[in-house]
Amino acid sequence: MKLLLIGFGVVGQGLAEILRDKGAQLEQAHGFSATIVGVVTASKGSLYRADGLDIAALLAAAQSGCFDAYPEQAGLRRRLPAGEMIAAGSADVLVEMSPTNLESAQPALAICHQALDAGLHLALANKGPVALDYANLRDKARAKGLQLRYEATVMAGTPTMQLAEEALAGCEIRSARGILNGTTNYMLTQMEGGLSYAEALAQAQALGYAEADPSGDVEGWDAAGKVLILANALFGSSLAMADLDVSGITQISAADIAAAAAAGERYKLIAQATPAGGAVKARRLPLSDPLASVSGSTNAITLETDLLGDVTLIGAGAGKLETGSAILSDLLAIQRNARA
Amino acid sequence: MKLLLIGFGVVGQGLAEILRDKGAQLEQAHGFSATIVGVVTASKGSLYRADGLDIAALLAAAQSGCFDAYPEQAGLRRRLPAGEMIAAGSADVLVEMSPTNLESAQPALAICHQALDAGLHLALANKGPVALDYANLRDKARAKGLQLRYEATVMAGTPTMQLAEEALAGCEIRSARGILNGTTNYMLTQMEGGLSYAEALAQAQALGYAEADPSGDVEGWDAAGKVLILANALFGSSLAMADLDVSGITQISAADIAAAAAAGERYKLIAQATPAGGAVKARRLPLSDPLASVSGSTNAITLETDLLGDVTLIGAGAGKLETGSAILSDLLAIQRNARA
Repeated sequence: MKLLLIGFGVVGQGLAEILRDKGAQLEQAHGFSATIVGVVTASKGSLYRADGLDIAALLAAAQSGCFDAYPEQAGLRRRLPAGEMIAAGSADVLVEMSPTNLESAQPALAICHQALDAGLHLALANKGPVALDYANLRDKARAKGLQLRYEATVMAGTPTMQLAEEALAGCEIRSARGILNGTTNYMLTQMEGGLSYAEALAQAQALGYAEADPSGDVEGWDAAGKVLILANALFGSSLAMADLDVSGITQISAADIAAAAAAGERYKLIAQATPAGGAVKARRLPLSDPLASVSGSTNAITLETDLLGDVTLIGAGAGKLETGSAILSDLLAIQRNARA
Repeated sequence: MKLLLIGFGVVGQGLAEILRDKGAQLEQAHGFSATIVGVVTASKGSLYRADGLDIAALLAAAQSGCFDAYPEQAGLRRRLPAGEMIAAGSADVLVEMSPTNLESAQPALAICHQALDAGLHLALANKGPVALDYANLRDKARAKGLQLRYEATVMAGTPTMQLAEEALAGCEIRSARGILNGTTNYMLTQMEGGLSYAEALAQAQALGYAEADPSGDVEGWDAAGKVLILANALFGSSLAMADLDVSGITQISAADIAAAAAAGERYKLIAQATPAGGAVKARRLPLSDPLASVSGSTNAITLETDLLGDVTLIGAGAGKLETGSAILSDLLAIQRNARA
């Protein structure tokens, strides 16, 4: 399987490390073998080689901050734009891992459409295209017999989408509600431990969980992007961000947390999707709710089903190998289904 | 898909109800359509009809306690033994739902081998054959290009095996530890609420969770059967019951529960499998462990993985539709993979 990677930050490097370290094992267990033929980045440059790039050299060049450090190789082309790499025709799958833009989904969205038009399967860690243009991407992929996969967009490699769409295929899912933003869950957990909102935020920033501008996390927009993806994928909704009822944790004080604790409850930022719509809101949960005991940066989701009642999945929501493994799982599924 | 059902108790009736009520939906969503061609039971009799039995009449006859109540129909044969139904050659899948026997796995095991020999796929809710003879069944199925599925044997329809074997396919699983017996978890939860062991047991029996002879649950044997299945399936172990370190909750007193609570901990009956072996033991867990907050008859499992860290799945561990849906999910997978 020949891969074209858009973005080579934490997730892309995680994927490359997994392919480097588990290559032999994946070949043996799943008959899976992948070659990276192209990498496009905004800040490090771009590399393309139809016969495949050297993963160790690619990782070393990325560590140096610039692909100029990648050694010369026969057939290597530098600074080729994504469109030309797609047009060159050697890739099977486009892996979109550039930063999420929840306003226009660009430039990733245009590249995704171009890739489908050219006959490439898609695997996304970037939430923008699936949050904002799911129906068009899905329809185009179906029409061309291609696969659209996005396990990494919700709960990193914790297999939320495979659980909902494949393992629970015989059930009807009636709602999804979860803790889908690790930064805010970490902050709420720290506030339960006695920190103020400002102290919890400073700590999340120091640990690299929260950005210098934390609004995407603390105001609920990151979780809202995931609600759109779940609503699109599970319920065939065509909701836009403006249709969601979104608030974050900025208004939650230490006193609120203490009052909840005194009542045997916990505040959690709950992202929720049903066939009727979606919301992101800080809610007080009783301790008996499986989501109430999910602490730190861990994520979790509860799917309400017709035959099985509630099914809850708890796991990592971010991280280098954790998110890289989501892309791997999509690639394995693409191979499995392409054979079917 | 033509089904031969062995056993028609709670699980079989749950499956039949699902096929009756969701038939059209399954046909539309998955191109799936199933016919029951035979049903063999120990107490109600047996029915066989190559062109398919009427599900509503079958359920009504089962309710009456005896298949004699099933109306005459062209081609209907009564009291045919399982072996003759298999030999008759019209079934595609044998669904084994007779009561679990963890000593010899018989008579189910012989029927399973006979079915594989005759070219039928297997879907099991009966734990015996997969706990005691997994490697032989798997090897025979592989050699004949048949599928061996057993989602219902661990956590009912909560998709434990699909999670471990398919959704986490790219990860290495290092251990599995879970609450896999709902009866004992219900009892421990009631004891935390102040009941004595005897009172909790009486309540579990009154609710139908525990048998008149509760030893299979309270001494850990039911959970141990599931440990064998997990060890066989996830780690390729060939453990026997005697290799496991098994104890139950019979030695746990109200005072133990109170002492754990005072230390911020909870007793749970933890079933554990690693490549090195397996155990079932009541353990004190800190409240921060996702398994600690799983209460009542709910089941849960934590899979420790190389790439994703811990992944925890929480859901129903028993129930009519809950277990019936596990069989449905196996049948959907059989259809999906048979096309591949």
